[in-house]
Amino acid sequence: MLVVMHLNASQQNIDAVAKAIESMGLQAHPLPGSTRTAIGITGNITAVDPNRLASMEGVLELVRVTRPYKLAGREMHPDNTVVKTPQTTVGGGNFTLIAGPCSVESEGLTVEIAEFLKSEGVHLLRAGAFKPRTSPYSFQGMGREGLEILKKVRAKTGIGIVTELMDTEEAEAVEDAADIIQIGTRNMQNYALLRRVGKMKKPVLLKRGMSATLEEWLMAAEYILAGGNRQVMLCERGVRTFNDHSRNTLDLSVVPPLQATSHLPVLIDPSHGTGKRAYVPPMALASLAAGADGLLLEIHPNPDKAASDGLQTIDFATFTKLRKTLGQLSPVLGKKLS
Amino acid sequence: MLVVMHLNASQQNIDAVAKAIESMGLQAHPLPGSTRTAIGITGNITAVDPNRLASMEGVLELVRVTRPYKLAGREMHPDNTVVKTPQTTVGGGNFTLIAGPCSVESEGLTVEIAEFLKSEGVHLLRAGAFKPRTSPYSFQGMGREGLEILKKVRAKTGIGIVTELMDTEEAEAVEDAADIIQIGTRNMQNYALLRRVGKMKKPVLLKRGMSATLEEWLMAAEYILAGGNRQVMLCERGVRTFNDHSRNTLDLSVVPPLQATSHLPVLIDPSHGTGKRAYVPPMALASLAAGADGLLLEIHPNPDKAASDGLQTIDFATFTKLRKTLGQLSPVLGKKLS
Amino acid sequence: MLVVMHLNASQQNIDAVAKAIESMGLQAHPLPGSTRTAIGITGNITAVDPNRLASMEGVLELVRVTRPYKLAGREMHPDNTVVKTPQTTVGGGNFTLIAGPCSVESEGLTVEIAEFLKSEGVHLLRAGAFKPRTSPYSFQGMGREGLEILKKVRAKTGIGIVTELMDTEEAEAVEDAADIIQIGTRNMQNYALLRRVGKMKKPVLLKRGMSATLEEWLMAAEYILAGGNRQVMLCERGVRTFNDHSRNTLDLSVVPPLQATSHLPVLIDPSHGTGKRAYVPPMALASLAAGADGLLLEIHPNPDKAASDGLQTIDFATFTKLRKTLGQLSPVLGKKLS
Amino acid sequence: MLVVMHLNASQQNIDAVAKAIESMGLQAHPLPGSTRTAIGITGNITAVDPNRLASMEGVLELVRVTRPYKLAGREMHPDNTVVKTPQTTVGGGNFTLIAGPCSVESEGLTVEIAEFLKSEGVHLLRAGAFKPRTSPYSFQGMGREGLEILKKVRAKTGIGIVTELMDTEEAEAVEDAADIIQIGTRNMQNYALLRRVGKMKKPVLLKRGMSATLEEWLMAAEYILAGGNRQVMLCERGVRTFNDHSRNTLDLSVVPPLQATSHLPVLIDPSHGTGKRAYVPPMALASLAAGADGLLLEIHPNPDKAASDGLQTIDFATFTKLRKTLGQLSPVLGKKLS
Repeated sequence: MLVVMHLNASQQNIDAVAKAIESMGLQAHPLPGSTRTAIGITGNITAVDPNRLASMEGVLELVRVTRPYKLAGREMHPDNTVVKTPQTTVGGGNFTLIAGPCSVESEGLTVEIAEFLKSEGVHLLRAGAFKPRTSPYSFQGMGREGLEILKKVRAKTGIGIVTELMDTEEAEAVEDAADIIQIGTRNMQNYALLRRVGKMKKPVLLKRGMSATLEEWLMAAEYILAGGNRQVMLCERGVRTFNDHSRNTLDLSVVPPLQATSHLPVLIDPSHGTGKRAYVPPMALASLAAGADGLLLEIHPNPDKAASDGLQTIDFATFTKLRKTLGQLSPVLGKKLS
Repeated sequence: MLVVMHLNASQQNIDAVAKAIESMGLQAHPLPGSTRTAIGITGNITAVDPNRLASMEGVLELVRVTRPYKLAGREMHPDNTVVKTPQTTVGGGNFTLIAGPCSVESEGLTVEIAEFLKSEGVHLLRAGAFKPRTSPYSFQGMGREGLEILKKVRAKTGIGIVTELMDTEEAEAVEDAADIIQIGTRNMQNYALLRRVGKMKKPVLLKRGMSATLEEWLMAAEYILAGGNRQVMLCERGVRTFNDHSRNTLDLSVVPPLQATSHLPVLIDPSHGTGKRAYVPPMALASLAAGADGLLLEIHPNPDKAASDGLQTIDFATFTKLRKTLGQLSPVLGKKLS
Repeated sequence: MLVVMHLNASQQNIDAVAKAIESMGLQAHPLPGSTRTAIGITGNITAVDPNRLASMEGVLELVRVTRPYKLAGREMHPDNTVVKTPQTTVGGGNFTLIAGPCSVESEGLTVEIAEFLKSEGVHLLRAGAFKPRTSPYSFQGMGREGLEILKKVRAKTGIGIVTELMDTEEAEAVEDAADIIQIGTRNMQNYALLRRVGKMKKPVLLKRGMSATLEEWLMAAEYILAGGNRQVMLCERGVRTFNDHSRNTLDLSVVPPLQATSHLPVLIDPSHGTGKRAYVPPMALASLAAGADGLLLEIHPNPDKAASDGLQTIDFATFTKLRKTLGQLSPVLGKKLS
Repeated sequence: MLVVMHLNASQQNIDAVAKAIESMGLQAHPLPGSTRTAIGITGNITAVDPNRLASMEGVLELVRVTRPYKLAGREMHPDNTVVKTPQTTVGGGNFTLIAGPCSVESEGLTVEIAEFLKSEGVHLLRAGAFKPRTSPYSFQGMGREGLEILKKVRAKTGIGIVTELMDTEEAEAVEDAADIIQIGTRNMQNYALLRRVGKMKKPVLLKRGMSATLEEWLMAAEYILAGGNRQVMLCERGVRTFNDHSRNTLDLSVVPPLQATSHLPVLIDPSHGTGKRAYVPPMALASLAAGADGLLLEIHPNPDKAASDGLQTIDFATFTKLRKTLGQLSPVLGKKLS
């Protein structure tokens, strides 16, 4: 922590701040500069509340130096986290594809998609039973019936299940059905939910909030990690900006700083991130090139008839072609497509 | 709904789209322009999914004409909603002050603040028992013990209680303690929570999400209204922008369009909206002038010792002075301070 | 300047950074904390380039403590700047109205508006001869002919002229016609232009760039001030955000921090800031309440027939009513309407 | 153009709007829907100003259907633009590298960099003689002396020159020195400058404004194209968002929609876009994968000693390694590295 003093702060002001710092059990280190004085603070700053320094006479601002994330940050955990499900591994040099329909519509359709994915070498199916919809009048997902379908699909095909948990009341049912539990964008700071999945034994895929900073995102992950669940993946899915060319702005630029700051695997969802199926393949390829650890993709045998999100859903042929190109690029980029 | 055709769309393309529209039981109205054709659609558009039109050959884009909010919008409900609690009325020409500490800290302190507010003619106390905190290591509120304190404070002083609900599991306990239930910024699109308060009998104060558009905000209110609870207030508390001069950008510019679009009362929270106590009074005055229906303010007898949010909390003397100025401005602006 | 070291930085890393600092002629002050070391730097930091410190081993980041604006900031210039034109004074407790048509359309119309404004006690007319238009096919203003009209209007009515300079090649002609030279949003960082008006003898009204931070805005003002022209006013006119309810987001929240940071007068343009005439009066009143020093308003006797920006232009009757309310609020807020 | 009527608009309102449309020489097509009426307009809409419709009784909003860009859009110009300089070709299946120091510092250094680039097969050198700097106290570039150096470097090495024009007064000097004239971010809507380069015979590289929408960017290009210069390239260099992890947010997501909308080549500047040299290579690779036509890169033999922008500048070894990987990826993506 650094206390930056006003240009015109008096020596009396400086002394009073230093004294206040010491009365908190910390050490004050005045650093007189050519135009102003700053006061460095050493000691266990997290144990005290420096708020009252900010309102002292002559203080311009407080500058924080510590990082609030301990478990999600790379400084204390330099090695990359590798997430394991019974079917596959995320991170550790893999580029993992997770694909499927926006929502579970029927057992037959879900099996069809799962079998297509298996034939393509994909191990994880994403499909929503509970759907967060902007309108109360839109299809809200099949709910628990959808979870039952997902369990049957896994039993039949052996594919792993990625599905969203929206409410603590459904926590046990979703944990039972899923191999990876997804926390959606709108719930990134639903702390009751984060605390609940922090106690689970299954991996969590945490989507970025629509206007979450890197720090807020890692602090949401910190809630899960601090609860004891260390199997956390992060997923970028488009952020809110002024742009008018797509529903959201897929922020691939977050990948390198995220990997510099955190050891958690980073996946990209170009379907939600672009909102338009034609833009999914180029952004999927760019995700791999930017260094991400995998993709979430919406696919459907007939996107125009999908129960939700059809505009951003690709068909089987597009998926096959995209996967082939990803497979050609992966070795150049030091990744193993899985 | 309007289907805008590509400049080079052929007559065959146009006919195919028109045929597709009619196969949905709707009417197609081609509008040939000087450079391109658009096709108007009439009929009950909400009953069908126009997605497949978007991917037809020659189609440039779909333009939506209907508004997705029915109950929150002013078109079908031209009269302003007036919200009533046992203690006071929000809307209907009142400018309502809601004030209190960020979090319940102790019974004694909460009573002290409640009595100060009563002496100032304020009827509603805001105080959090459950606190949404960015860090899992920060004070998370007193929880149910805090709710018990709030009930005692109401019993002792007669002041109305505004407090936040964060999780469906606490719904009954919070409904029991509160006169107005607050849904916080991070939960604006927590649909399980919105559905739950939609079934309650007490008014709801719905804070705007950090990057929520006006439409998304009204659609979140629509969830509550559609559940049967028509006592909904909206509260602007700062949005996420590129600005570096404050933690959030208090968006007073939303007030006039919100009031043009919706009949729900609009309150402003300049404490969270600015994040700095010195900026609270000018923005509070500007809120009144912009046409808002009231304020949420964080006050504390000793802000520097507040358990949370001290930097944005004003003291009693500042509140008294601010309230006096609001009282002088109100009649000029056609509002009654309460 | 503070150099924040990585958590795992070695003593060798720290020593190397300290040595590098000293080799620049500065002093290094290592501050060992509970988790990491930071190194304070004292001495004349502006004379050196600390870039190479950022890439040294063990360095996490550099934290700047100095403020880059010297002349625009309040620290070295605590007294408010008061701007004088032959007709009136901006700042110093005045709330100054500047109004007029978006663009000069004809001498007759401009005289009509000027005379209306004079009758309302307004001393400054805004009207564009050179218009920055998004489309090359839109009306670009009357150019030098428009400047000639403005000079005649001033001669006839005595009203002061506020008009925009867009290009250094027109600098002399605009300086000759104007009492206040406006630099528009899109030119806030047109440094050639800023340097040019920095050498002028007439006051400059500097509009905020569409996504300019407070610091960038003050640094643009610094260009003008550093050139020798100290008569600078700032004008907020809406910034670019994700909002869908208006063309721009009028950022009144910048007023208190701007006044805390700078001594320059702050005006608000609610016409461009909202883009819709019905929203202009409430945001104009809110500007006064937020502490601004004045307004720029677009008015026209028949807004629907204005040559540009008609949707955001108010008529004479609306202006008269608005001015009356501003007049009633001003004394309560310690301002003198002019 | 579509006029959307209010839900409660009367038949009289609808008739009045239709009559107003017809009085403008256009045709009105009322489209009664299940909840509201919309009125389609056909005829030459660009010739009239529909503003007055917006303020008519019963009108909710106007929806524009036409696109304002004629020359920059792909609808009227389906074939991709290919830009030619004496040294190379941009677009047409090439992935073009443009690299060099942020600013011209000396002839020796610039020759050294140019020769390195030539040895790497790069045909275009970027280097600034006039530098737009946020602070008036920072190094502003070598100016005309820098242009002289660039001319000598071209004469000696044969490399093409890309350099920025900031002011119409320097137009001839820059045109003389450059093979491609760069218009910087801060000048994207400097219309005097755009008009000037619209009359030049040399290609223009137009950087995106910090908060420019796709439409605004294309309209800026339209100014140049409408002036007669059809050799225009677009360059994304990071936009302004709420993100805290880098100075700007490099918006790769704009590439696919830009290429769908416009025929102009799209280049990416990951140096300015990330602001940090470690993030440049992954974002450069992602640019290629996203479908861009080339890169602008800042390189320097000793980035820590660069006169400006050192933090985002890569060294020769990093460039060589990056170019090798780009070369391996290009054929898979159907591009030819040049």
